[in-house]
Amino acid sequence: MKRINNNQFTVYGINSAICVIESGSLDIASIDILKDSRVDKNQSLMKKISRLSITPQFYKKDSFYQKYPDVRAQGIVVSFYGDVLKKDIPDLTHSNDICLLALDQIEDPQNFGQIIRTAECAGIHGIIFPKHHSVPITNSVLQVSQGAFVNVSLYEVTNLKHSFSDLKNNGFWIVGVENSIESKTWDKIDYKGKTVIVVGSEGRGIRKKVLETCDYKATIPMQGITNSLNVSATVSAIVFERLRQIQNNN
Amino acid sequence: MKRINNNQFTVYGINSAICVIESGSLDIASIDILKDSRVDKNQSLMKKISRLSITPQFYKKDSFYQKYPDVRAQGIVVSFYGDVLKKDIPDLTHSNDICLLALDQIEDPQNFGQIIRTAECAGIHGIIFPKHHSVPITNSVLQVSQGAFVNVSLYEVTNLKHSFSDLKNNGFWIVGVENSIESKTWDKIDYKGKTVIVVGSEGRGIRKKVLETCDYKATIPMQGITNSLNVSATVSAIVFERLRQIQNNN
Repeated sequence: MKRINNNQFTVYGINSAICVIESGSLDIASIDILKDSRVDKNQSLMKKISRLSITPQFYKKDSFYQKYPDVRAQGIVVSFYGDVLKKDIPDLTHSNDICLLALDQIEDPQNFGQIIRTAECAGIHGIIFPKHHSVPITNSVLQVSQGAFVNVSLYEVTNLKHSFSDLKNNGFWIVGVENSIESKTWDKIDYKGKTVIVVGSEGRGIRKKVLETCDYKATIPMQGITNSLNVSATVSAIVFERLRQIQNNN
Repeated sequence: MKRINNNQFTVYGINSAICVIESGSLDIASIDILKDSRVDKNQSLMKKISRLSITPQFYKKDSFYQKYPDVRAQGIVVSFYGDVLKKDIPDLTHSNDICLLALDQIEDPQNFGQIIRTAECAGIHGIIFPKHHSVPITNSVLQVSQGAFVNVSLYEVTNLKHSFSDLKNNGFWIVGVENSIESKTWDKIDYKGKTVIVVGSEGRGIRKKVLETCDYKATIPMQGITNSLNVSATVSAIVFERLRQIQNNN
């Protein structure tokens, strides 16, 4: 998979396009619009586009679908340059009730994109993932996130353990989601305050060295026979349990 | 998309293959195995296969990948005939703490498959979906479910409202997951006892007529800017909240 870093990305469809156009921080390279489509007739969106320094290109049906044959473009394709990745986790010493998600070597772009999307909806502040042996941020990842990547900080780090060490110094507790003897069920963990929730790769879970740095371990007890919960479904269960705890505390 | 009903299905990969082979209820048509692969060397799996009435076909690398070029087959492909769909919801009058999931016109096979997978892990007893305007059970749906379809009853019904009416007569409460003025936050709903959890289609939510039959409405308050939670992520948050309630009650 091609690694795209501070480079050009392309997203398709209204949701993603609106996020990129409204971001203010991304440098839009081109906007391609299908003439007389729902997008073309969306006055609010077209007004936003008119305020940009870039002029959109309008395409007739034939030429639009010739240029974008395989994608469900919904009449709009936006290319942009931007610092989608943030390299350094900011100093969070004085922040409260902040939750970061750490992905230990997630391999599937679909899962990564879904996790970004879910995290944004659940009020997660940022996602940390290792530079190596992890799916990089690609157009596919961004596309699946449905624009949520604009509103969740994505931190690519060289060493998860070192990042955890820094975060611990900033008052964070690290919770690894992993089935082990010491694991508590997921709802018996306190996710309030400063928390990092760690999930592992699709096949192998959290690496041993990373797991050793976790202060707590959480498990979701499986109720079926197959018992193969997708990592993005796991994340959804956990981050909304955190939201439940926070909202019931106020 | 081709509708396959009581017809031949094909699943790829170890997880799905094991589920189908162990099901006992599915009529296996063929098993194709890659020679000297991890599957071929898996003695426990090969022993299970040897007890079947069917003889597996072994393929050398070239011919296996020629036959299955596009799929991550992991060395095993199983075709089978079977009543994957159940037409009639059984009489559940005397059952307790039973939860069904109803999908109102889900369109995306990826979402449908993920929901089956998540539901199985969370102890959901069955999934109801309408025959029309819903993605049918396809190989893609079964594949994404990673074999979970074997262990969750799938009820294809002609009319969701009628099914809800029957279920209400059987003592079920119907909870619609939909953002409306009367909605309570998702964790303020009691999912214990006999419950049907209804989620709507990706774009339009639950249809008005279906929503009117719901006894309660639940909403997950969005915390971000994009706020577009995928329907399978929504299901995960809700079904594990149900599990939390049930487990804390015992």
